[in-house]
Formats: sequence, structure tokens, C-alpha cells
Amino acid sequence: MDFSSTRVITLMTDFGTSDHYVGVMKGVILNINPHAQIVDITHTIPPQDIHGAAILIDTAYRYFPSGTIHLIVVDPGVGSHRRAIICQTETARFICPDNGILTHIIHNEKYIRTVSVENSSYFLPQVSNTFHGRDIFAPVAAHLSRGVSMDKLGNPITDPVQFPIPKPKVTNGVIVGHIIWIDTFGNLVTNISHDMLESWTGQAGVVIHAGNAKIAHLNHSYAESPVGETLAIIGSSNRLEISINQGDAARVLGLKRGDAITVCVT
Amino acid sequence: MDFSSTRVITLMTDFGTSDHYVGVMKGVILNINPHAQIVDITHTIPPQDIHGAAILIDTAYRYFPSGTIHLIVVDPGVGSHRRAIICQTETARFICPDNGILTHIIHNEKYIRTVSVENSSYFLPQVSNTFHGRDIFAPVAAHLSRGVSMDKLGNPITDPVQFPIPKPKVTNGVIVGHIIWIDTFGNLVTNISHDMLESWTGQAGVVIHAGNAKIAHLNHSYAESPVGETLAIIGSSNRLEISINQGDAARVLGLKRGDAITVCVT
Amino acid sequence: MDFSSTRVITLMTDFGTSDHYVGVMKGVILNINPHAQIVDITHTIPPQDIHGAAILIDTAYRYFPSGTIHLIVVDPGVGSHRRAIICQTETARFICPDNGILTHIIHNEKYIRTVSVENSSYFLPQVSNTFHGRDIFAPVAAHLSRGVSMDKLGNPITDPVQFPIPKPKVTNGVIVGHIIWIDTFGNLVTNISHDMLESWTGQAGVVIHAGNAKIAHLNHSYAESPVGETLAIIGSSNRLEISINQGDAARVLGLKRGDAITVCVT
Repeated sequence: MDFSSTRVITLMTDFGTSDHYVGVMKGVILNINPHAQIVDITHTIPPQDIHGAAILIDTAYRYFPSGTIHLIVVDPGVGSHRRAIICQTETARFICPDNGILTHIIHNEKYIRTVSVENSSYFLPQVSNTFHGRDIFAPVAAHLSRGVSMDKLGNPITDPVQFPIPKPKVTNGVIVGHIIWIDTFGNLVTNISHDMLESWTGQAGVVIHAGNAKIAHLNHSYAESPVGETLAIIGSSNRLEISINQGDAARVLGLKRGDAITVCVT
Repeated sequence: MDFSSTRVITLMTDFGTSDHYVGVMKGVILNINPHAQIVDITHTIPPQDIHGAAILIDTAYRYFPSGTIHLIVVDPGVGSHRRAIICQTETARFICPDNGILTHIIHNEKYIRTVSVENSSYFLPQVSNTFHGRDIFAPVAAHLSRGVSMDKLGNPITDPVQFPIPKPKVTNGVIVGHIIWIDTFGNLVTNISHDMLESWTGQAGVVIHAGNAKIAHLNHSYAESPVGETLAIIGSSNRLEISINQGDAARVLGLKRGDAITVCVT
Repeated sequence: MDFSSTRVITLMTDFGTSDHYVGVMKGVILNINPHAQIVDITHTIPPQDIHGAAILIDTAYRYFPSGTIHLIVVDPGVGSHRRAIICQTETARFICPDNGILTHIIHNEKYIRTVSVENSSYFLPQVSNTFHGRDIFAPVAAHLSRGVSMDKLGNPITDPVQFPIPKPKVTNGVIVGHIIWIDTFGNLVTNISHDMLESWTGQAGVVIHAGNAKIAHLNHSYAESPVGETLAIIGSSNRLEISINQGDAARVLGLKRGDAITVCVT
């Protein structure tokens, strides 16, 4: 793995875009590596929502060029003794607070090498109590993108924080999954994968229960259903999603992250 | 027209910026063309608002460098049989679902060449049902920016979808126009152009009716009017706009897109 | 000071990101200087909030590469006789309407040279009444970044608009400061600097009053306090901030910009 020519650095934070925080991180990066190509993934992760950030980075990273550095700062523990980590896979590097954000990536990837970031000579000279995004994460990402090796930045660890990943359960012939993300359109993304659905149902029909809605069909497009109708579809991350054609399923069905979605074979 | 060195790709979507969608499109583009220079126009087109996107891209595109590729994804028909199109004018290329987004551009530009995008070898290997922005539009735009010709990407068509453009009407000596866009400040942009106003009114005075407001004067700046006063001004797209100095005209006047604005000569 | 190779141009506006305004400014810049590297600081300065923009640019600019051009457009006086100015310091250049946005920077920096932008040959050919961000500020910034000298763009002035900077006052042994910014998390940033606090309190303890909250301790991290507890901390701009661990201090305490925060020695 030769990451020496890496230029792309993605940013994902809960900083919003109303303050100077994200802009300043970019300034710090460009000051260290003027050739960095910075791409925002999102800055409106709900404040301190580590689980949400974990889902989104896992959904996003595979679409970036090999060698991309992903910087994720959702950091309720900033200034405490939580570690900062860099995690390298076969095709990417991730830098973030060690609080579980990389749970899905560590779970999915075969090759994982992790260091705890400790070499303060790669930080800004003054490190604040409240903004390690600017003072530690951004400069370390920029140095990484210039070719500084992980070994120079910290020491290997084998115990990055991970949280349990809730899996769908099959009980009494019913898959019970959960809503793991609700997007800006109100689409309900579940943890029931296309593969699971296919292997479990075979050629049989399904009935899906999402709140009060009962859906007896998997759509191939939103537009197959009349406007305003609740529908089920395999979404862009290969997961079962509940949607309303040109509507907001989360609002109409009154569902939220963590709520159950069930699938029965008919 | 030699577009071979095109680097700028603009993005306009209704995806919002809370999810990974826009970031992932950029990842796909940079994976194909690392030299692309991506510029966001906006990602908060109201969901499925094709008419709004059509107005905004028409207002924006002429300010970009010659050869710019404009990628617009407002796509309620994603996954259905609606076509994806590339439309080339003398100075720009547009790629979007074939649903009317380019109505104003096709209406205004003399030279128009359009293809229906069909060559799936330029798509991502797996095309989802719900996110052609990532799977089709982004990779095709990136290949275009690398110099792949339109002819390789699809087949010529002459019938891109267009919707009727509502024009202001003169009846009984009164211009009746409509609000076509409301900006973030609450300024009401009408479809009454400066040229129309000038040729119709000559040197005469005007009285403009916008909801309950009656305006007897065209401002040269917002600051000419006291703070909080409703005013009329030729805005930045050379159209009549109704504003409130340091206020929100849409909210105060209770007006919305499509509402009538009338102009009488005095 | 050789700024000839400047590539970074930052943007700060109150234009929001729902319209085409910001994207079009970037188009204009890239049309003049294809090598410009544009970085958004924020576009959601509250409409016409010159004081807020003044605080944010002062907090942000020192983290960008030397030679960066900062373009700030919060411009209630657009189209009136207010001047457009370029202000050069030892390490940066600022371009903005002459309405006080640079108050803090002019106050802090030793070397300041300012011109009033007047040479319309560097503007867009047609200058609107309402959008000088596109027609004047963006093209002038782009020409600056290409090496056009300030002298060619306008004439020296020595009286840029500045507003009074409210300083904390010590009365009866109590520091009375004010909230100068509330960030997206609801953190209350005050104008009481770390230096002031340290030199005034020495080794003594402090009691801080923020609305109904009474805080007897300066935190070193948010996480030191239980979730939901109001706390005081030296924030990332070296100022006293009032926060709630994983909560929104502004909302919970019912405080707003300009409200007093007091510090007593115990």
C-alpha cells in the first residue's frame, strides 16, 4: 500500500456550518499541505451522535479514491483522556477520536492497522481544551497526506473502542430489524440487507411492517407507487428502506432511529 | 467547441447536506477524474422541486467558465424509465434527469445538442434503484470532464422534456407577472424582466402591487428605503424583485412562489 | 510581503446556501483565476449581522496560509455609496464592504494598509444593484489572487469604518463581560480572555454567573462535568465560554448575544 501521493481528505463532523470551525480546519490543512483536496461529507451529524457518524462513514468511504484520508470529528470526549486514533485499511485511512466511530469499518475490513496519535510535534503548537479538530486532527491528517508515516504519528494499538452492532433477528419466522439512519428526505434506512432478505425469502413474497404501515411489495423505483404512498425498496446502501414517494416517511409514520421494522414471508 | 480541458463540475441537487449523498458523488467524480474542480451551487433545492432547480440553474450557469459541466440531480423519477440526458450549448454542458430541469436553458440558447445517456460502461458497476446521482450522473460527468465525447455516452435526441414557461401578461394596461423564486432573505423574484418593464413603461412612473403592499417607485439600492420598508428593485438576475430593506418580504407579505405581482403605469 | 502566488480565497457571507449566490461567486472567481482554491468559512452569518461577521473572521483568519485572501460579504448597504475596501495585513488580505467587518482585525494588527476599491475595469462588465458579491467582490478577489496589486484596484484610505469594541469592565471587584458569539452547539463565547482572567484572578478561585447559573470552577474538558451540567471553560479562541456538557447552554440558560457574564474572585 503506497499512500504517498494521497490528496483527498474528507471531513465529517457535528460542527454545523454556521461557525468558523470547519473553515478553520481547512485552513490548517492547507497550511500544511497546499495540495490537499478537501471534500465535505457532512457537518450536520447531530451533536455528539457517534452512532450516526459510524453509520454514515461506513456508507460513504468505499466510494472515494484509494488512499483517501477520512477525518471524522464527533467528539464529546474532547480534552479528556480519550485517545485520537488513525486506522488504516487496505484502501483508506481514518482519523478520529477513539470513541466507536469506526466500529462498522473495523468489523467489515480484513486488514486493519491502528495507532494512537501521540506525537505532539505534528499538532498545532497550542492545543485547546475544546477544539482538537483544529489543533490535532486537522494537522495530523494533513501530515499524513504529505506522506508522514503512521509510525511517526503514534504507537500501535489493538483495542480501538467498538460498540455492539445490533443485527436483525429472526424469531418465529419474522425478521426484526431496526432503523439505523433517517435521511434528509425522511427515508428510513434499516439494518436489513438485500442479501439477508434474498437468502431468507427466496422467491416468496414478503409483508413489511413499519409503524402502522403494512407493505406487501418491494419496489424497483419510487415512481412505481402513487405519490404519497408508503413503499419498501432496496436503497443505495443495499439495505431495505421504507419511503414515501415524494413524501417524508419518518414524519408520516412517526418513526425514529432504533424503531423496529419487521419482515414476514407470505 | 473544444471542451477537452474542462475541469469545473458544478453540483445542484435536492439531497441536502445532512447525509453522505453529496460527498459520495464527489468521491465518485474524483475517483474517475482527480483533476476535477467541483463547485456546489446548492443542495437544498426543495425535495423534487424541478421547477425551482430549472430557475436556479438558468440563473447560475452563465457565470461559470466556458466548458463547465453542470450536474443537476432533482430526480423524483429515479429508477423509472425517465431518461438521463446531456445537453450541450455553446459554452457549457448539462447533465440531469430528463424531467424539464433544462427548460429555460433550452428555451434561451441557440445551439443545443442533446443525447440520452445509455452507455452503461461509463456508470458505476452496480446501479441502485434510488441513487443515480452516485451511480450514473456523477461518473458520466467525470468521464465527460476527462474528454469522453457525448457520442460515446449516448444517442442523440431532439425531444428533451420541457414544461411551459409562464410569461407575464399585459391585460387592461397592467402587467401581471408571477413570483418564480424566493431567496433565503425572503426576496421575491418575479418573471418580469428589466427589459420588459423598461420597454413597456418608457419614462412613465409605475405602481407595483405585491400582496397588500403598493410600491410607487423602483429603488436603486435596498438602503434607499428605511429599514423594514417594502420596496421594488431590479435584482441581480435583471428581474423585478420585491424586497424589504433588512427584512423578509415573503414572510411579511405572506406571499409564495406562483403568486401574482402586478405593475401599472401611472 | 510577496503575495504573488496566493491561491486560497476564503468566503464568508450571509447569503445562505439555498440559492445560487455562493456558487455563482465561485464561478466568477474560477473564470478569472482557474487556480484559485476556494474555502468556505460560513454562509449563514445571520442576515446583515456585521458584528457577528466581524467576530468570526477575526477568530478564523489566523489559521489560514500566509497570503490568503478573505472575502467577506455581509452588505446591507449594497448599491448605496458605502465603499468596498481591501485591507492588507502582514499575512493576509481582506476584501469586504466598508461597514465595520474588519474592526477587530484593524484593532489587533500592527501593519494595516487599506484601499477603497474603485477601478471598475476589474469588476464584471455589468454591475447590479443588489449583488456586489458577484459583480465586484468576487472578481476583485480573483484578480488580487492573480497578482494584480492593490494600487491598481483602488486608492489608499486611512479611515475604514470601525465600530466600538465592547471590553469587559471590572467594577467592585467583579469582571462584567458579554456574550459575543453563540455557536451551533449553544456554547456562549464571551469577550473575557484567558489572559485577562489569569492576570486578574491569579491563583484565586472564581465564581461565574451566567443567567441563573452559578459556576465555581473552570473545566479542562467538557467531559469533566456530568452530561447536562452547566460549566465554564477556556474555549478554542482563548476566551471564557459557558457550556453544557452535551447540551445547549444558550437554550437552557435563555441567554443571547450581548448578555452579561460576570466573574467574581472568591
